[in-house]
Amino acid sequence: MGSALSFPARDNGHEVRLVGTMLDKDIITEARKSNFHPTLKRTLPDGVSCFRLEELDAALVDTELVIGGVSSFGVDWFADEILPRLPEGLPVLSVTKGMIYTSDGTFATYPKLYESRMPGREYCAIGGPCTSYELADRIQTHVCFCGNNMPLLRKLRNLLHTSYYHISLSTDVIGVECAVALKNAYALAVTLAAGISLSIGETLHYNSQAALFGQSVAEMRKLLELFGGNDDNIVYGAGDLYVTVFGGRTRLLGTLLGQGVSFEDAMKRLSGVTLESVVIASRTAQAVRDRISQGKASADDYPLLLYVDDIIRGEKNDAIPWDGFETVANHNNPN
Amino acid sequence: MGSALSFPARDNGHEVRLVGTMLDKDIITEARKSNFHPTLKRTLPDGVSCFRLEELDAALVDTELVIGGVSSFGVDWFADEILPRLPEGLPVLSVTKGMIYTSDGTFATYPKLYESRMPGREYCAIGGPCTSYELADRIQTHVCFCGNNMPLLRKLRNLLHTSYYHISLSTDVIGVECAVALKNAYALAVTLAAGISLSIGETLHYNSQAALFGQSVAEMRKLLELFGGNDDNIVYGAGDLYVTVFGGRTRLLGTLLGQGVSFEDAMKRLSGVTLESVVIASRTAQAVRDRISQGKASADDYPLLLYVDDIIRGEKNDAIPWDGFETVANHNNPN
Repeated sequence: MGSALSFPARDNGHEVRLVGTMLDKDIITEARKSNFHPTLKRTLPDGVSCFRLEELDAALVDTELVIGGVSSFGVDWFADEILPRLPEGLPVLSVTKGMIYTSDGTFATYPKLYESRMPGREYCAIGGPCTSYELADRIQTHVCFCGNNMPLLRKLRNLLHTSYYHISLSTDVIGVECAVALKNAYALAVTLAAGISLSIGETLHYNSQAALFGQSVAEMRKLLELFGGNDDNIVYGAGDLYVTVFGGRTRLLGTLLGQGVSFEDAMKRLSGVTLESVVIASRTAQAVRDRISQGKASADDYPLLLYVDDIIRGEKNDAIPWDGFETVANHNNPN
Repeated sequence: MGSALSFPARDNGHEVRLVGTMLDKDIITEARKSNFHPTLKRTLPDGVSCFRLEELDAALVDTELVIGGVSSFGVDWFADEILPRLPEGLPVLSVTKGMIYTSDGTFATYPKLYESRMPGREYCAIGGPCTSYELADRIQTHVCFCGNNMPLLRKLRNLLHTSYYHISLSTDVIGVECAVALKNAYALAVTLAAGISLSIGETLHYNSQAALFGQSVAEMRKLLELFGGNDDNIVYGAGDLYVTVFGGRTRLLGTLLGQGVSFEDAMKRLSGVTLESVVIASRTAQAVRDRISQGKASADDYPLLLYVDDIIRGEKNDAIPWDGFETVANHNNPN
């Protein structure tokens, strides 16, 4: 994703310097030779210069903005090894999706984590549905830049906004990052319906998918409130959930679990690689369980999340608690 | 859908009497002979008895509940010809989806329309994502029964709730019915992305679909508020939207429009049959435009709806107003 952002940046005429981590040596070598990025599978725009990690200082000369493109597994390394080497005051825009589950039961966003490790500059983040391949193909995309400093967010939008890369702005960092993280957990939940359908026959069923999608939206809205984000961010959660359920390893796992395969056996079929959706579902469920035991939340509000977590913990894989999704709404409505 | 409800009704041991309209003579003849329902394409449960319209009075003897299963084109006929023949006080549960756009610029639900035509009994309605085929196949389904009388809604749920048919209850009739109607209009909007993708190549793009889906959720929430419904009903709108975009004539139309075909030409390819999604998009846009001219709404809040309506009116079919989806959210958030 970091590399894909070189497309809107170059289209806006900025000088772009791509710095690889120690894991990206082959990518940088190839891109220097032919301008082709082997994992993005695209030729980079003209004018992007590529640097090895040991050349970081040269890449940072007169830089206006650092975009941090590490995966969630590289966050600690980025905080410990890169942040101290950045010029003071240089803002950082992070594309890493996810949340940190802290030992006191709260969530922290990556901007907040970076701030705690290396204060003295502004940290912002990008949320919202965006695949790197499509951004590099200049397909219409709508994301959200979030951070504490609105004037800086406006400046970042000016730097990167193009005719195909559209950018909302929000100072609700926890709300944006939480919505974006939660959709991973609920993608697992919605794709259970695919597995249930396949265990009956070969046809995918819409009623059950729609019921799980609706329940996911209901629970994500409540979780946003529980974790201190504004529930308007459901727009990013729902949009991102809509496309995440179409494919990938999370869908494969959800389908297997929906067919009644145990979590242990399903993970064996996925070669044991830990999925972000599983991590987020577990951690979110743990945070909810903590709040339930403190009397700050009710299990009745999160039946689908807790069901998914029970499956992950190997506790059960029987029927989805459909009746738990039923609500009774008494509104005084003149209509 | 009316016929499909005989499955949960019979599974709960109720006596079910299916009455056909004057358009359903062949269905009733076939069902009487073989128990097979030709349009539902399923064998009806044992114990469902079938009646022609002229036998309505016999079918109504000792009835606890009438389920009205006419399409939106049959609503006036149902109000004029059937309601006067029902015993006084007998409740009616309507499965018809849609809204009435009244001449004073407000929307009315079908229960409200029936109440105005023939007061003296309770009218309830079913909203939420449910295809009749899947209900008849006893696939897990979650719907919402709405009406003004919560004790009656609870009774109706007791009559029809099964292990596969799950029922939320709401007295927010306008909210439920509005969410369910709006998803038709926005299904047209989301499927524009499929057409745009196909006009570029053969691959469907996720970034643009997700952006349109998120914008649809944002606008549907605002429309719920504008029309006087609670925005919790976005759960039904989003769940229903999620599955409506997968197929059918609305997707076909949206795809053609997204490819840049004019509305007029697209309708010719669809043999000129008026789609409910088009009617709802037009009427909702008209209601929004009325409120804009009265200073009660802002065009900035509904760029996608107004864009779809412009296409329908033949006014333009150029680029989607992506930049109009961008928002700026300033939250005082401790995180």
